[in-house]
Amino acid sequence: MADIMSHLLARRSIRRFTDEPVSQGELRMLLEAGMAAPSASNRRPWEFVVVTDPLLLANLRDVLILGRYGAPAAIVACGNLGRALPFPVRDFWIQDCSAATQNILLAATGLGLGAVWIGVHPIALFVKAVSRVLAIPRGVVPLNTIWVGHPAEAKAPRTQYDERRVHWQQYAPARAHRRSAALR
Amino acid sequence: MADIMSHLLARRSIRRFTDEPVSQGELRMLLEAGMAAPSASNRRPWEFVVVTDPLLLANLRDVLILGRYGAPAAIVACGNLGRALPFPVRDFWIQDCSAATQNILLAATGLGLGAVWIGVHPIALFVKAVSRVLAIPRGVVPLNTIWVGHPAEAKAPRTQYDERRVHWQQYAPARAHRRSAALR
Repeated sequence: MADIMSHLLARRSIRRFTDEPVSQGELRMLLEAGMAAPSASNRRPWEFVVVTDPLLLANLRDVLILGRYGAPAAIVACGNLGRALPFPVRDFWIQDCSAATQNILLAATGLGLGAVWIGVHPIALFVKAVSRVLAIPRGVVPLNTIWVGHPAEAKAPRTQYDERRVHWQQYAPARAHRRSAALR
Repeated sequence: MADIMSHLLARRSIRRFTDEPVSQGELRMLLEAGMAAPSASNRRPWEFVVVTDPLLLANLRDVLILGRYGAPAAIVACGNLGRALPFPVRDFWIQDCSAATQNILLAATGLGLGAVWIGVHPIALFVKAVSRVLAIPRGVVPLNTIWVGHPAEAKAPRTQYDERRVHWQQYAPARAHRRSAALR
């Protein structure tokens, strides 16, 4: 499993797709990948709407004004608030569904597909519009739309590692030293 | 890359660890994995505090009453609100940092390490306590604590695929049919 890094770095946002459909078997694997993600207290608060119908895809594109791509399939990852944890930890569903989404993106890459994550929640207008198109009921919140297809563009693997985003031991060492002493 | 599914299904929450330290090279790879995640508008609003100091790890365990494990390292994924998108899309940082966290968990698994994601945000008490221990300033929000180490337990790969969580074309087909007609 030493090539995990190559898998992770190969995942890039793909926005150009061929007309080739995504097979049922591939969609099934993407969903298995999503549901292998961890979730808070293992609540698995996710639901997935899989769209391949051309009219519905067109309707989705109509409403996703910031992320309309010509993919032959879309997976909309949703949080079911009825299965989420109670307040004040209800919003862990967002983190759970994000982890599931990342798994789907990685699975797509690994299967030779391309995918891109278009944010929906917390943009109320988009949540409402996507819910209307896909008949998603109140209490189920579309987190995103993942466009999936066969890639018509190639991107080189990369990390965007930046050592300035890394703090060793504490965020602000000088201040922290005093605080740490105060904690004892 | 056909074994991506085995990578994804092999990731399990590991809560028992040996005393063996996590090397600097391993920690660096975990951070590269995290920063290979996608983020909304590529804002990369994340910061990571890497903790291996025994006293600080003990202090973290003291405050994480629901997730105190004996790992030799922890990575705390944080959102820097100053680098996040503006309102009303600021909270995309949660999704971005969750995707980065999932990448870290997968990298850990692939490198033969074990890891577990302990939620911090949105539990205000935990955010405050973790920030105090790690000297994280206001405006930077710890999303979680990822305990990392060499696993002292083995878990079988799995998906938790559940077909009841999958909806084809629309969430509620009968109702949706009427709505879809109304949309035309």
